[in-house]
Amino acid sequence: MSLERIYRYVDEHADAFVQDLVRLVRQPSVSAKGEGIEDCAELVEEMMREVGLSAKILKGEKGHPVIYGEVKSKRTAKTLLFYNHYDVQPPEPLEEWKYEPFGGEIADGKVYGRGAVDNKGNLVSRLKAVQAYLETVGNVPVNIKFVVDGEEEIGSPNLEPIVKRCKQLFSADAAVWEFGGTDRRGRPHLYLGLKGVLSVELRAKCALKDVHSANAPLIPNAAWRLVWALNMLKDMNEKILIEDFYDKVQPPSDEEIECLRNIPFEEEELRKELGLNQFLKGLSGFEALKALLFQPTCTINGLLSGYTGKGSKTVLPKEAMAKLDFRLVPNQKPDEILEKLTRHLKAHGFSDIEIVRYGSTEPVKTPVSDPFVSLIAKTAEKVYGEKAVIYPLSAGSGPMHLFRNILGLPVVSAGCGHPESNTHAPNENLRIESFIKGVKFIAALINDFAGYSVA
Amino acid sequence: MSLERIYRYVDEHADAFVQDLVRLVRQPSVSAKGEGIEDCAELVEEMMREVGLSAKILKGEKGHPVIYGEVKSKRTAKTLLFYNHYDVQPPEPLEEWKYEPFGGEIADGKVYGRGAVDNKGNLVSRLKAVQAYLETVGNVPVNIKFVVDGEEEIGSPNLEPIVKRCKQLFSADAAVWEFGGTDRRGRPHLYLGLKGVLSVELRAKCALKDVHSANAPLIPNAAWRLVWALNMLKDMNEKILIEDFYDKVQPPSDEEIECLRNIPFEEEELRKELGLNQFLKGLSGFEALKALLFQPTCTINGLLSGYTGKGSKTVLPKEAMAKLDFRLVPNQKPDEILEKLTRHLKAHGFSDIEIVRYGSTEPVKTPVSDPFVSLIAKTAEKVYGEKAVIYPLSAGSGPMHLFRNILGLPVVSAGCGHPESNTHAPNENLRIESFIKGVKFIAALINDFAGYSVA
Repeated sequence: MSLERIYRYVDEHADAFVQDLVRLVRQPSVSAKGEGIEDCAELVEEMMREVGLSAKILKGEKGHPVIYGEVKSKRTAKTLLFYNHYDVQPPEPLEEWKYEPFGGEIADGKVYGRGAVDNKGNLVSRLKAVQAYLETVGNVPVNIKFVVDGEEEIGSPNLEPIVKRCKQLFSADAAVWEFGGTDRRGRPHLYLGLKGVLSVELRAKCALKDVHSANAPLIPNAAWRLVWALNMLKDMNEKILIEDFYDKVQPPSDEEIECLRNIPFEEEELRKELGLNQFLKGLSGFEALKALLFQPTCTINGLLSGYTGKGSKTVLPKEAMAKLDFRLVPNQKPDEILEKLTRHLKAHGFSDIEIVRYGSTEPVKTPVSDPFVSLIAKTAEKVYGEKAVIYPLSAGSGPMHLFRNILGLPVVSAGCGHPESNTHAPNENLRIESFIKGVKFIAALINDFAGYSVA
Repeated sequence: MSLERIYRYVDEHADAFVQDLVRLVRQPSVSAKGEGIEDCAELVEEMMREVGLSAKILKGEKGHPVIYGEVKSKRTAKTLLFYNHYDVQPPEPLEEWKYEPFGGEIADGKVYGRGAVDNKGNLVSRLKAVQAYLETVGNVPVNIKFVVDGEEEIGSPNLEPIVKRCKQLFSADAAVWEFGGTDRRGRPHLYLGLKGVLSVELRAKCALKDVHSANAPLIPNAAWRLVWALNMLKDMNEKILIEDFYDKVQPPSDEEIECLRNIPFEEEELRKELGLNQFLKGLSGFEALKALLFQPTCTINGLLSGYTGKGSKTVLPKEAMAKLDFRLVPNQKPDEILEKLTRHLKAHGFSDIEIVRYGSTEPVKTPVSDPFVSLIAKTAEKVYGEKAVIYPLSAGSGPMHLFRNILGLPVVSAGCGHPESNTHAPNENLRIESFIKGVKFIAALINDFAGYSVA
C-alpha cells in the first residue's frame, strides 16, 4: 500500500486536524486539581468515535477514567498499542502566559495551550493517523489499541489495577509511548525507557496558630523546621543525603553508553534558553547527558509558609510545606525510597515532619537491542530524513513499567514535540508543522509495523 | 479634680465608644499592601476633631501620612504625648477568621477585627479619655499630643524625617507608647523598651523560566538555593550563624534582672494556647522570660516557591523567596545587621541571593529608675487594683527610639490588650471590658501626670 495516499489525505485535512487539537486543548483537564477531568474523558471518547475507533471509558475503584479505543485490522493479528494521556499539568504561574492556557490560541504557526504538546497534541496526531487510514483505505494494516490515561501528570496512581484487570484487552505486540519529537535540527528522538518518580509533600506543624514573631525566642517555627529538614535531604553539591539512596542505582551498560555518545545534546541552546552560564556542577557534553539520564534527583517543586504577600509581616508561621519529587533510575523503587526518606528524617530528629505521598512510577527500559527499537528508528529516519537519536532512558517519568512489566511489551516513545514546546511550563505550544509531520510518522509506523516480526 | 466624674462619663458613653472603635476597625488600613491607608488617615483626623482635638495630617516625602492631634491645657505647660498607629497587619490567613477581618463584629463581649487591639483599640481608648475631660470639665489638666503613625506594622520606614522635622511640634515631657494590657489575672503590664527589628526578603533566582523537573540533574533550583542559604543563617539549636551577629548584645542589668524576676510569666497558659509541650530548647520560667526579652532572633515569616496548589506538579522553580525578620536587642543596629547578613551570605557562596530590605527600627529602652516609670506604675496599680508588672524591654518592636533618642522623652508602653487578643493573628479582638478600663486608665494617667515633676 502506498503511504502517498495517506500523506495526501493528511495534508488536505491539516486545518481540520489542528481544529480538533484546539478543541481538545480548550477542554481543561488538570488532574492535580480534578478540574475538567470527566468532561475531557468524554471528549476523548467522542473524538475516538469520530475517527472510527470503538471506544469506551474504563473506571477503576478510584481515580480518573481511562479511555480505551481500538480498531481491528482485517489483515493481521498483530497489534500496536498507543499509550497517551488526556490530563495536563496545572497551568500556573498564570501571569506568564502570553495566551489563555486553555484558549487553544493559534499564533506563529503554533497552537498555544496547556497540553498542546503534552499530551493532547501527541494523542490527536495518533488518532488522526488512524483516521487517515480509515478514510482512505477503509482499514488499518494492524490492530490498533489506545490506552488514554487521566492521571499521568500525577503519577498514574490508579492505572496499575486497570492494566492488571485489562491484561487481555490491552494485549499487543509493542507499544508506542506518549511523547517525543525532534531536536532543533529536525532529528527525531526516540526514548527506550523512563526514570521513575516519587512525589511527596513534607509538612511541618508547630504551634496551633500563627503568632507574632516577637515570640520567636520561645515558639518553634514551622518554616525553620522545614528548612532544616530539607537541608538534611540534599547538600550544596547536589548529593542526596538520604541513607542508602544510591544503593541500587544501575549504571548505564556499554550499549547504553554507546547510545549516549550518539545523542547530539543541544546543551548550548538549553543554557541560552534558560539564561545559564553553566549547568550544575559545571557539567557539560557527555557527562551532562549521562547525568541527565542516569542520575537520580531530589527536586523541590514548591515551598509555602506564612505570609507571602507584598512587603513584610512579623508573623511566626505555625505550618510550612514543601512539595518534592525524586526521579529514580533502574533499579530504584519508589516504595523503598519513601521508606528510606521516612527513616532518614526520623534518624535526624525530624519525625515531626509529616510525609504525604502523591504519585509514583517505577523506572523502566526496553533494551537497545530489541527489534521494535530498530523498526521504529528506521521509520523515523525515513519520515524525518534524519537518523533517529536513541535515548536508552528518558529524564521524564510515567507508568511505562506497567506496559513493559505486566503486559510484557517492548515500549518506545516517539512524538511530535520540539525543544521549545515549553512542556510543563508557561506558554506550552505545539508547532503545527511538527504536528502534521507527527501524524505522517505515526501513519508510516503503522504501515511498517505490519511487516514487523514479533519476537 | 475628681476622677469619679470622668469615670461616670466613660461608663455612660461606653456603647458609643465601642461603636467608634467598630467604625475605625471597619476601615481597612493594611500598610504592607497600601490598602485603605488614605481613607483611614482621614477617618482618624475626623475622629480627633470629633473628640475636640485640633488635628492635621502630616506628610513626608514618601510613605503613609502621620496624623497629629493636640489639645492645650489651660493649667500647665506640661505635655504628655501618645504614640499610636492606624495601620494594621495583613489579615491573612483569611480562612481562619471566625468573623470578617474588617467587619468589626461584636461577639462574646469582644470587638473582633484586624486592628481591634493593635492599635485601633488603644488609639480610641486614648482619644476617648481626652473626650471625657473635654466633655465633662471642658479642659485637660496637661497638654496632650497624639502622633498616629501609618507605617508601624512595616517598620515605620518614613517616620524619622517627620520626627526630626517636627521636633518642636512633638516636644513633650513624656510619651505613652502604643500597646500594653493586663495578664489573665488582671495585672497591668508596662513596657519600658522595645527590641529592634530588621525585616528583609531573600530572593533566589536561577533559570529564566520554570522547567520540567526531569531537568534536575543539570538546572539549578531556586528553592534549593534558598533552603541552603537559609540554613546558613540559623542552626537547629536556634543559634544565629551570621558572623559577629551577637557581638554588641548588651545583657540585662541587675535592675532589669530584678524586674524580670517580678514578671509573673504565664507560660503554661501560653503553651496550652499554642498546643506546645515545651518552649524552644526546653526553656521555662525565668530563663524563658529572659530569652523572650533579651535574646535577638531570626524568624522566617514566609516562604514561597514553585507550585503550591493541590497535589503534585513536577516543576523545577526558577525563583524562591523567604521573608525574614531579625529582632534586635540593645545595642544591635539594623544597618550593621544587614551588612553582616550580606557579608555572611557572600562569604558562604550565596552572593546570588538578592536581599530586599523592608522596615527596621532600633532597639531602645527607658531606664527602670526613670520617675515617669514610677508614676505610670502607680496610676496603673490604682486603676487596676493590682501592682504593675514592669518589663524592662518588650519582645515587640516599633519606632520608639525616635521618641526616646531624638525627642529625648521617657517612654512607657501601657494599653488595653489581653493575652488572648490574638495580636497579628487571625481573630484579633479587644475585650470591651478591657477597652473601657483602658479609657479610665488613660484618664487617670492624664490626671496624675499633672502632678508629675519633670526631670
